[in-house]
Amino acid sequence: METYLIFKDLAIVIFAAEVFGLLARKLKAPQVVGQIIAGLLIGPSVLGLVNLNDNNSAIAYLAEIGVMLIMFSAGLETNLKDLLNTGLLSLIIACVGVFVPLIGGFLLFSFFYYGGIPAAGSKEFFEAVFMGTIMTATSVGISVQVLKELGKLKSKVGQIILSSAIIDDVIGIVVLTFVMSLSGEGGGESKGIGRVCLDVVLFFVFTIVLGIIIYNVFKLLNKKYSHHRRLPILGLAFGMIMAYCAEALFGIADITGAYAAGIILCNIKDSDYVAEKMDINSYMIFGPIFFVSIGLKTQFDGMTSDILIFSLLFVVVALATKVIGCGTIAKLAKFNFRDSLKIGVGMMTRGEVALIVASKGLAIGLVDQKYFAAVILLIICSSIATPIILKLLFKGDKDDSGSGGEKTEQIAENSAPAPAQS
Amino acid sequence: METYLIFKDLAIVIFAAEVFGLLARKLKAPQVVGQIIAGLLIGPSVLGLVNLNDNNSAIAYLAEIGVMLIMFSAGLETNLKDLLNTGLLSLIIACVGVFVPLIGGFLLFSFFYYGGIPAAGSKEFFEAVFMGTIMTATSVGISVQVLKELGKLKSKVGQIILSSAIIDDVIGIVVLTFVMSLSGEGGGESKGIGRVCLDVVLFFVFTIVLGIIIYNVFKLLNKKYSHHRRLPILGLAFGMIMAYCAEALFGIADITGAYAAGIILCNIKDSDYVAEKMDINSYMIFGPIFFVSIGLKTQFDGMTSDILIFSLLFVVVALATKVIGCGTIAKLAKFNFRDSLKIGVGMMTRGEVALIVASKGLAIGLVDQKYFAAVILLIICSSIATPIILKLLFKGDKDDSGSGGEKTEQIAENSAPAPAQS
Repeated sequence: METYLIFKDLAIVIFAAEVFGLLARKLKAPQVVGQIIAGLLIGPSVLGLVNLNDNNSAIAYLAEIGVMLIMFSAGLETNLKDLLNTGLLSLIIACVGVFVPLIGGFLLFSFFYYGGIPAAGSKEFFEAVFMGTIMTATSVGISVQVLKELGKLKSKVGQIILSSAIIDDVIGIVVLTFVMSLSGEGGGESKGIGRVCLDVVLFFVFTIVLGIIIYNVFKLLNKKYSHHRRLPILGLAFGMIMAYCAEALFGIADITGAYAAGIILCNIKDSDYVAEKMDINSYMIFGPIFFVSIGLKTQFDGMTSDILIFSLLFVVVALATKVIGCGTIAKLAKFNFRDSLKIGVGMMTRGEVALIVASKGLAIGLVDQKYFAAVILLIICSSIATPIILKLLFKGDKDDSGSGGEKTEQIAENSAPAPAQS
Repeated sequence: METYLIFKDLAIVIFAAEVFGLLARKLKAPQVVGQIIAGLLIGPSVLGLVNLNDNNSAIAYLAEIGVMLIMFSAGLETNLKDLLNTGLLSLIIACVGVFVPLIGGFLLFSFFYYGGIPAAGSKEFFEAVFMGTIMTATSVGISVQVLKELGKLKSKVGQIILSSAIIDDVIGIVVLTFVMSLSGEGGGESKGIGRVCLDVVLFFVFTIVLGIIIYNVFKLLNKKYSHHRRLPILGLAFGMIMAYCAEALFGIADITGAYAAGIILCNIKDSDYVAEKMDINSYMIFGPIFFVSIGLKTQFDGMTSDILIFSLLFVVVALATKVIGCGTIAKLAKFNFRDSLKIGVGMMTRGEVALIVASKGLAIGLVDQKYFAAVILLIICSSIATPIILKLLFKGDKDDSGSGGEKTEQIAENSAPAPAQS
């Protein structure tokens, strides 16, 4: 019956997120950076005002709903035609964006701890492979939010970053399962690479079949209830079902399911209206809590100089490999240098997926607890660096995002009055 | 890391709430009734699709935030002048609305189980007193939502119901503590009647002092950021802080704190704009979850015919005593019969407070687990009966709720398109 205790933490989180988000904007940085730093400050690593312990699962739940809402409305604001046009390129970028960091992490760990590549198949070998695997998955949530703030989500570059990051998640999961089944440590976790690929295929089939049905249902609903609250409410329920099914039925990240749900609805007449209602829920409570919680998760105790050096190298390699890998492909695909760099940087961010991979590694004894500091440092650095660099790169470009982008830019623009309808 | 599991339950809850809310409206009943019934159906007592076990605290948290949001925006939509005008009358109605049920419950239990009044001071005596205490507190959340749906929240009758229910909560807490300290069973729980009265006074002083400061801060913010998302966000943070402080510092229900926060901000220029943003959060996710969760909490196992009969009498007495007690005072205050009945019926609803009182009684050994069925039955019946009767009573009245009421009526009106700005 002590549920009232959550209000203290929630109030602190929401207030800090708002204040530091504003501060970040005044310093011309995206507000998500401010919100993550707010989490660092109020979290255990500095002030310790809010702690993510078991009594505090409320924040974890709200953060999970937050990232789900962000991905869902990202899907809603997707231009399906563009996504399909950029599909092949995104696929290639995603693959390279997985394998270059995988190799980079493998080499870093091997040479840092063993001065060379351990015998293939040995425990050391798989430890090194796993360290690389942690580096693979881009966290799309942060990039999406930044692209929204910049009003570039619907731009070609934005679409490529978004779809690559999504595909990248899927490939990351395949790689993880591959490594785990090879290392024979998977136990209950492991389900075999064949099964994983099958699941991925089945998920796409499931999404397409269900998508066609649901899309037509919503088209009818939209006719009957134009600009009516029923659409966002039922849309939200559908997004949540997809998030659940993706993970429960196919072992694919729930955020990927939410994004797919958004894409399914992105062509209904009121998709902007639905997305806008999601945004209001998102910016009022759920979104800030998600970004603050990244900072809250951070703890810097138990840091030895040895781990510290490794962590810093880990971060550098993880960021560099994504930028070089993805950027190179973009350049080969005839993007100019600046846009290629945007795509590379947009793929830099790591998030909860990296933590999930690391904890799976911990569970099967291939990753030591002490390396979590490195993973968290990577999440923090990439979450802070990516938005700033992306904003600098986009600055001065003329807007190529279309009206939708404009709208989201306005809605996200904190120091300008929100438009009447938001 | 299994947070994705919440999405299944949330999707079911949101979908069921929407469908049955719509169904209720088609049957000319308020949609909250549909939502509570939806909870009954999907909950353990019927289909068992969603269970409120420990793994599912997400729904409990969201429901708590939901009732907090409802109370906060109820405060925002309060007409402070009317509240002060109705203050004394509300106080009297609240007092009578506490003591008549208290005596009713005491007599029912005494005669049902002991065929007469037990010796004062005996355990049986305090068991009977406690059964009455459970009946005292009106649950304002449901009445508020219904009055909003009917667009009568700002009407004189609506204001009296609302403020009486609020005062009634406070008196209920005083009575509870009084009984517990008298019965000498309180233990850590009990803090003495003097202390309780002091806390209530201190809470009002705290609210007034803080209120004057915060009100002026928000007046300045409102000047700087008219119709800007910053106002609802900071308002929400303030509402949550007040909810926390009320319960943590003064032992007063968190919803009372949230309502006080709303009243503090009800006179800023953009109070309607802030309330509207709260409503969007509330109707999309939190509100439905709160009302569905009332149904979810219900379990009818372990029902003996003995308990069943007592439960039914318990419900009848609890409802009748409120209607008669509060209605009579209203009639004496020169309200016509119909309006007096509205006030009496509006005070009938019981909710989480009754459950809290019962569980405190369980904790100190004055209430047996088996009587929880009676309490839950009371919550269900009153939650379903009150909205229907209120709607019937208000039907045919000409609207006396002012534009604010009109707006909320529109917003709540599910089968009419939501206004552009919602």
